[in-house]
Amino acid sequence: MNRRMVVFILGWILKLEALFLLLPLLVGLLYREFTGCLCFLITIAVCGLAGVLIARKKPANTVFYMKEGCAATALGWILLSITGALPFYLSREIPSYTDALFETISGFTTTGASVLPEVESLSYCMLFWRSFTHWLGGMGVLVFLLAVIKMTGGSHMNLMRAESPGPSVGKLVPKVKHTAAILYQIYLFLTVVQIVLLLLGGMPVFDAVTTAFGTAGTGGFGIKNDSMAGYSPYIQWVTTIFMLLFGVNFNMYFLLLLKKWKTAFRMEEVRGYFLVVLAATGIILVNTYDAAVGFFGSLRHVAFQVASIITTTGFSTVDFDLWPEASRTVLVMLMFIGACAGSTGGGIKVSRFIVLIKSVRRELSSYIYPKSVKRINVDGRPVEHEVIRGINVYFITFILIFSFSVLCLSFEGKGMVTSFTAVAATINNIGPGLELVGPAQNFGGFTPLSKYVLMFDMLAGRLELFPLLLLFYPPCLKGLLGIGRRGKK
Amino acid sequence: MNRRMVVFILGWILKLEALFLLLPLLVGLLYREFTGCLCFLITIAVCGLAGVLIARKKPANTVFYMKEGCAATALGWILLSITGALPFYLSREIPSYTDALFETISGFTTTGASVLPEVESLSYCMLFWRSFTHWLGGMGVLVFLLAVIKMTGGSHMNLMRAESPGPSVGKLVPKVKHTAAILYQIYLFLTVVQIVLLLLGGMPVFDAVTTAFGTAGTGGFGIKNDSMAGYSPYIQWVTTIFMLLFGVNFNMYFLLLLKKWKTAFRMEEVRGYFLVVLAATGIILVNTYDAAVGFFGSLRHVAFQVASIITTTGFSTVDFDLWPEASRTVLVMLMFIGACAGSTGGGIKVSRFIVLIKSVRRELSSYIYPKSVKRINVDGRPVEHEVIRGINVYFITFILIFSFSVLCLSFEGKGMVTSFTAVAATINNIGPGLELVGPAQNFGGFTPLSKYVLMFDMLAGRLELFPLLLLFYPPCLKGLLGIGRRGKK
Repeated sequence: MNRRMVVFILGWILKLEALFLLLPLLVGLLYREFTGCLCFLITIAVCGLAGVLIARKKPANTVFYMKEGCAATALGWILLSITGALPFYLSREIPSYTDALFETISGFTTTGASVLPEVESLSYCMLFWRSFTHWLGGMGVLVFLLAVIKMTGGSHMNLMRAESPGPSVGKLVPKVKHTAAILYQIYLFLTVVQIVLLLLGGMPVFDAVTTAFGTAGTGGFGIKNDSMAGYSPYIQWVTTIFMLLFGVNFNMYFLLLLKKWKTAFRMEEVRGYFLVVLAATGIILVNTYDAAVGFFGSLRHVAFQVASIITTTGFSTVDFDLWPEASRTVLVMLMFIGACAGSTGGGIKVSRFIVLIKSVRRELSSYIYPKSVKRINVDGRPVEHEVIRGINVYFITFILIFSFSVLCLSFEGKGMVTSFTAVAATINNIGPGLELVGPAQNFGGFTPLSKYVLMFDMLAGRLELFPLLLLFYPPCLKGLLGIGRRGKK
Repeated sequence: MNRRMVVFILGWILKLEALFLLLPLLVGLLYREFTGCLCFLITIAVCGLAGVLIARKKPANTVFYMKEGCAATALGWILLSITGALPFYLSREIPSYTDALFETISGFTTTGASVLPEVESLSYCMLFWRSFTHWLGGMGVLVFLLAVIKMTGGSHMNLMRAESPGPSVGKLVPKVKHTAAILYQIYLFLTVVQIVLLLLGGMPVFDAVTTAFGTAGTGGFGIKNDSMAGYSPYIQWVTTIFMLLFGVNFNMYFLLLLKKWKTAFRMEEVRGYFLVVLAATGIILVNTYDAAVGFFGSLRHVAFQVASIITTTGFSTVDFDLWPEASRTVLVMLMFIGACAGSTGGGIKVSRFIVLIKSVRRELSSYIYPKSVKRINVDGRPVEHEVIRGINVYFITFILIFSFSVLCLSFEGKGMVTSFTAVAATINNIGPGLELVGPAQNFGGFTPLSKYVLMFDMLAGRLELFPLLLLFYPPCLKGLLGIGRRGKK
């Protein structure tokens, strides 16, 4: 294990965080929130100093494999959250450090699950930082790092792969550095368009920016106690559309930029994603139809909730925990399906389900035509055996972590639906679940132990399980701590 | 598709069923229940006549592939249930045919989920038939068929594979016919030992026989309204032990017969199975400990329920739906784990989980040592790639069917825990679930549509998904109906 290189990257992450924290500091100055400003200044000083000290000079050996990529990513995200929680804690706006950490991890992982019973009493700078973590976490902090710092050959790819969602990570252009930059440009462009459209609907600037951050990162932290319920239908529709757009595989946008219209619109994953959205909206619309609200009113609420859950954003315009059981069941299923790979959304991802369903069909076919060897194709190209194996292992690992987490939470005795959906809402990076963690409730009622389990789930979900799990795998842990096998790296 | 051969086997199944029905007829005569006897006589006549007509002569072409094996098994089980439900329906003891069919499928698939609010008013012959279906379904009706009729080469194996639980079906001895016979001998022997031990505890003969049937098949239909709660601790302990014994891979018993003690006691699956039993018992014991009942009383109830659920039997001595949430969560997890492959139990099977967990460990290891190719070993032998793939596809198909079934049930609005555990308890062939389908409740409250979904789940679970799914797969369906591709078989 090249520990020096891992530490070097961690240093860079801290330096970046210091940089990012300047933005909420600026907001604090604008709104004259000087206590908040002080807390941000202290955090910036801590991160900046530590970062500069740690990443003072580049190690001589910059060779960097998958294990270093995973370790750096997992430790980087943990470090980001530990330091990112400081402003909340120092300002006493979230008095418990565990709660502050929960809120920050929920922010960076774009979960949006909150421990706060109400958010309107928070200062502007804290609300801004809370939403800004979504935007940073959405596209990935290491992807950002890749876009700005110079590294040797394979290292880029190993970092990118560890942080990016989806079963296989493709480079858009030959250089990872350029890929990362293009992704961030598309991301920024879409965010700005959304802000403009929200402003046109008469939304205050602060609300528009934070809402766009929450939408773009598919995060879901709102700045109002009732999430998005109080905004106009126009604003709700804009948010619905942008949630869906940020759940689309960004490769499609790149194809559109290259004017490869046909290839773009034929992407099976994107088609599958919109098909699920339509089907879910249809079922819930029929199941919850309320003549008092009318067809368009119902459609607006249902489309909003479906978009919010499948993209794993977690905003809400109504308390969907009050919907009939079938609608709630559909929403829970959407939680697991999640958005497209290569988007900012969480969940298991539509592309994985496409491959899984195709493998079931292939199995059935093998019973009828035992001698024919059928390959699984997606977008007209065969899926490599390694990718299929990876998806299978991912799915199983997911179920195992999920079950274990539910078991841990069940000792609180808050009810099986609460335990089940609390884990579903965190491991899939959504935010609200059902019953005691429903949209009108919060995660504050859990014991610290359960909160740490849920924090683990949020990080595991965002980093797609393995980078985080590796930290607990003895051979990796030994390498990181430098125990044994000194000769090998 | 060799349709003649499929029909020939179906005919044999009907003939066998007529034979099996003689036993409850005899019981009816003993207890002088003449209405019941008449119903059994009619059913015997129908099955016998239809069977003789259909299986009059062996087809010239006896070539028989996997698809024919699956189709014959799935259709055979459906046919068994349709005709097996007749006595209940004709006697009006279960007035609705849907309910009678549900009860029969629940019997043959060794589920033990009942639609009856109370069973003590049923006649002896009906109670006997109800429990006897468990015994027949446990080891498999086609396995029985294999033990008695003569078939050509590969045909045996294709039938055996379609009906036997587990990721890979091994022949104990070179001839499938002999393997089937040995399995039934072990099965019969264990059943007889249990009956004798129950009789020694002062249990009435009828109760002992039916309880042993329910235990051996890991079925769970009781003949008392309170299941096993009213029996003595001795009888409860005997049942606990035998439930566990019938959940063990029968290969182990065969190894014991061959005096291969070491190999037998080193079987990873059996060790894993008992480890799970011990862990679950430990957790629940601590979680539910009731000083009033004392340690041994608590242990008896906990061990009984754990054995009952992991072996997918479904007997109960207490209403475990009243236990704390953590204990209920452990029980739900046990439902999915299930018993060993090659036993009479249902569920996903311990051996599949062993391979799945090992594949997760291998994945983690591949991050650290990317160049080393690690194989998955079970019992010291490498697991073939095909078997691993099969387990993965099985797991995914299971989750897909499971989710779809829960969605179907959710339209009834009986609560998410009820819907979830009703499907879990049927697809894993257990019987009771939680809340409205808890041990003190029954499945009678569902609409016929939901009942058919659950019947599908019971059959899918017992036949390990694919044989049943194939019936709905267009290429197979066309072959069965003889549509298109007339040239090919």
